[in-house]
Amino acid sequence: MAAVASEVDEALNALLPAEEGDERPLFAAMRYACMGGGKKMRAFLVIEGARQFGVAPQSALRVAAAVEMLHAYSLVHDDLPAMDNDDLRRGKPTVHRAWDEATAILVGDALQTQAFVVLASPETHSDPAVRAELCLHLALAAGARGMVGGQMLDMMAEKAAEPLDEAAVGRLQLLKTGRLIEFAAEAGAILGKAGAHQRQCLGAYGREVGAAFQIADDLLDLTATPEEAGKATGKDAGAGKATLLGLLGPERARAQAERLVDQAVTHLDNFDDRADLLRALASHVIRRKN
Amino acid sequence: MAAVASEVDEALNALLPAEEGDERPLFAAMRYACMGGGKKMRAFLVIEGARQFGVAPQSALRVAAAVEMLHAYSLVHDDLPAMDNDDLRRGKPTVHRAWDEATAILVGDALQTQAFVVLASPETHSDPAVRAELCLHLALAAGARGMVGGQMLDMMAEKAAEPLDEAAVGRLQLLKTGRLIEFAAEAGAILGKAGAHQRQCLGAYGREVGAAFQIADDLLDLTATPEEAGKATGKDAGAGKATLLGLLGPERARAQAERLVDQAVTHLDNFDDRADLLRALASHVIRRKN
Repeated sequence: MAAVASEVDEALNALLPAEEGDERPLFAAMRYACMGGGKKMRAFLVIEGARQFGVAPQSALRVAAAVEMLHAYSLVHDDLPAMDNDDLRRGKPTVHRAWDEATAILVGDALQTQAFVVLASPETHSDPAVRAELCLHLALAAGARGMVGGQMLDMMAEKAAEPLDEAAVGRLQLLKTGRLIEFAAEAGAILGKAGAHQRQCLGAYGREVGAAFQIADDLLDLTATPEEAGKATGKDAGAGKATLLGLLGPERARAQAERLVDQAVTHLDNFDDRADLLRALASHVIRRKN
Repeated sequence: MAAVASEVDEALNALLPAEEGDERPLFAAMRYACMGGGKKMRAFLVIEGARQFGVAPQSALRVAAAVEMLHAYSLVHDDLPAMDNDDLRRGKPTVHRAWDEATAILVGDALQTQAFVVLASPETHSDPAVRAELCLHLALAAGARGMVGGQMLDMMAEKAAEPLDEAAVGRLQLLKTGRLIEFAAEAGAILGKAGAHQRQCLGAYGREVGAAFQIADDLLDLTATPEEAGKATGKDAGAGKATLLGLLGPERARAQAERLVDQAVTHLDNFDDRADLLRALASHVIRRKN
């Protein structure tokens, strides 16, 4: 994962506007938000998914970078004072802290757009049908019926009189983080023009890895120090965040994450040993320390 | 234009998420931001541009709706307290006033994404190369080197010690509003797979109509009442906004807008009488009252 993170940082360096011209502060803050930090798990999923179908590494790397731009945009906006009001992200001040709120809003806006510039560009794939399909499915994963819808539910849950039940929390998490991770896992199948069945298997793997990842994230929020996590921890319980951990308690939540990882790996049964890193990632997400 | 606005509102009604489910407030606010108000000039440009090449009306209408979603997103974010802090837009409370700041951030985010959902969907055009081209050029017009870059320059100009000169203001306006209007004008040529020359003519027409529109907007800010304009007026001078009007004064600014309109119409010389509404629009933008 560290090797992929460094390759993706190089790709981001090439795909984000250079720090020059009068808009320099915007470009600098876009780079700050995307590069030099983060696990780049979504990028890893794109690249390992693409490996299953012999996709050209340059194509996979561009899509991986686009997914990380989209993810970084969501973090920059989630951290805003009107949202989660976080000061620390990936061990560094958040964008609205390092610059200001207006810049952070614009950085998020521009990172989302730049993801679509990258996906729609001929350099990403010679077949325009592949490019259009990537744009469509990233947009579906990220929009009102995906990530942003999940973020809305999360904001509403904090203010709600009644806590959400397990089904509602599961849906919230699927939308907020699961859909983008699902897209990352199936993007390689889109790039490789794989059959519907293989694409569905990777998507299902991604959804379950995403759900396990979310539980692990909530456990880290409970147990890690801010130094270990690179961001404020212990906030979820205080903010009334809707998490499975809050509903199930640590032991049952951890058991559920283990179950999700087992299921995720099952979806890879028809893949050969090229999928071993995807299998390994599934168990890694619930053992990680940040 | 009123007929187009009503058709586009119908299309938006079909293309935006229905007001149902737990995320209802997000969906309601997205609709509020896009529908039932605004001149829909960008939609008009898409539809009249598409008419030059006999594009299917349903295709043009979908692209017109996508451009209006993108435009509405930019207004919702520009109105935020951290940006222009406006309470009134199109004669109604702004989204962060009618809902709250977090909802307004998410509404803008989701409207941008939804524009790409619409452009990338097979229903918009049977040829995926057309869909990928639409996604690419909308994203280029809207992103860090287009609309968002221009908004960043605008924010920076307000805080700058020295006012911008005419060239810098012209560049700011081209990025902030011109690029999206240019895209709207040339989208019909993309849909109709027109030759490069015709597409360039429409794009150049759009850039000059956009520049004239911006001067007219600044003149309205100076002279119209908030009731006439549907938004707060007289704010530019106080906020130290970088406008050509501020640099040139009303008379020279108006003369420049007239010149831009004449030039815009010249770019339509090779088009037949199907372009008469585009010709009429060019002079309308500097005569409008809101």
